[in-house]
Amino acid sequence: MTDATPPDSRTRMIASAAELFREQGYSATGFRDVVEHSGAPRGSIYHHFPGGKAQLAQEVVQLASDVTVHRIERAAADGDPQAMLDAFAGGWRRQLERSDFRAGCPVVAVAVEADATPEVAAAAAAAFERWEALFAQTLRRSGIPRARAGRIATLTVAAMEGAVIQCRAGRTVTPLDEVRRELGALVSSARS
Amino acid sequence: MTDATPPDSRTRMIASAAELFREQGYSATGFRDVVEHSGAPRGSIYHHFPGGKAQLAQEVVQLASDVTVHRIERAAADGDPQAMLDAFAGGWRRQLERSDFRAGCPVVAVAVEADATPEVAAAAAAAFERWEALFAQTLRRSGIPRARAGRIATLTVAAMEGAVIQCRAGRTVTPLDEVRRELGALVSSARS
Repeated sequence: MTDATPPDSRTRMIASAAELFREQGYSATGFRDVVEHSGAPRGSIYHHFPGGKAQLAQEVVQLASDVTVHRIERAAADGDPQAMLDAFAGGWRRQLERSDFRAGCPVVAVAVEADATPEVAAAAAAAFERWEALFAQTLRRSGIPRARAGRIATLTVAAMEGAVIQCRAGRTVTPLDEVRRELGALVSSARS
Repeated sequence: MTDATPPDSRTRMIASAAELFREQGYSATGFRDVVEHSGAPRGSIYHHFPGGKAQLAQEVVQLASDVTVHRIERAAADGDPQAMLDAFAGGWRRQLERSDFRAGCPVVAVAVEADATPEVAAAAAAAFERWEALFAQTLRRSGIPRARAGRIATLTVAAMEGAVIQCRAGRTVTPLDEVRRELGALVSSARS
């Protein structure tokens, strides 16, 4: 929030849905849970999301995508790919620790459950691609050739997402730390 | 199957649950779906899985873990880590293509949904660790020091699992191919 205005009920519902998707997944989260969690009036969810749960899921993915892009852009402002890796891994690490390893990625949550509609899957794919494009840009600017920068960016997003899943299952941040370290070594060797 | 005996109803139910978890996730899959998909008698599921859905999920994770271990062990029999990467990536690639990008990893499915019990999450973590231990062993035997072999093994499992999610969302095998290629480069440089 950039000012003191409290979030409106639509924004609160999207934030609540993001939190519930992170923890319990897409299928297990009903509109009723979102209404209860956000404290929004019962009928308002159909007013704000006439496209139903698929529309709500797309908004959740968009929010998660924006938050991550903001974090990466801020970290990569001086063009250092290692700072960018730290920002991406550090964000997940804090979220895992704060949630006692309950909260994963809401984009992954919608991507792995096929009752998510094609539109929702496409939104998830677009979020992954947007993160990869940002990583690839910073990697290219640090001197890595275009095609390789693209592949390392894909590996980065895939490995961080996979590591978050392993961290939740094993209740430890070790996989994320190990992945961060190896990605850092790979980026260093690709630059030299 | 090593002989012509048809699988018993318990085995069929586990295989059906694995397939349903892969495609629609853990929460969205009910006992009723498993009974219907496997063609098993209605009451038999409570007979075979007195521990309920959590027990069924643990059996699914065990089956998926065994199948993957078998595939990796066979591929890594001659100690070539690149053949091992090909076997792991190739297995996922075939599954994604055969299922028209509907089928992901059942271990991930149970790991990302928190209504999975702690026992189920622990089973998922154990499966990831078992795969990593196998990778790490082959990497060590190829000349990579122990600590680094462990980290690259973690990265491999994380990145492949993350790539499968990206492939499903984007309906393309490109992320998996890119991840396979970069992991191969990393392994080569770690050996030299």
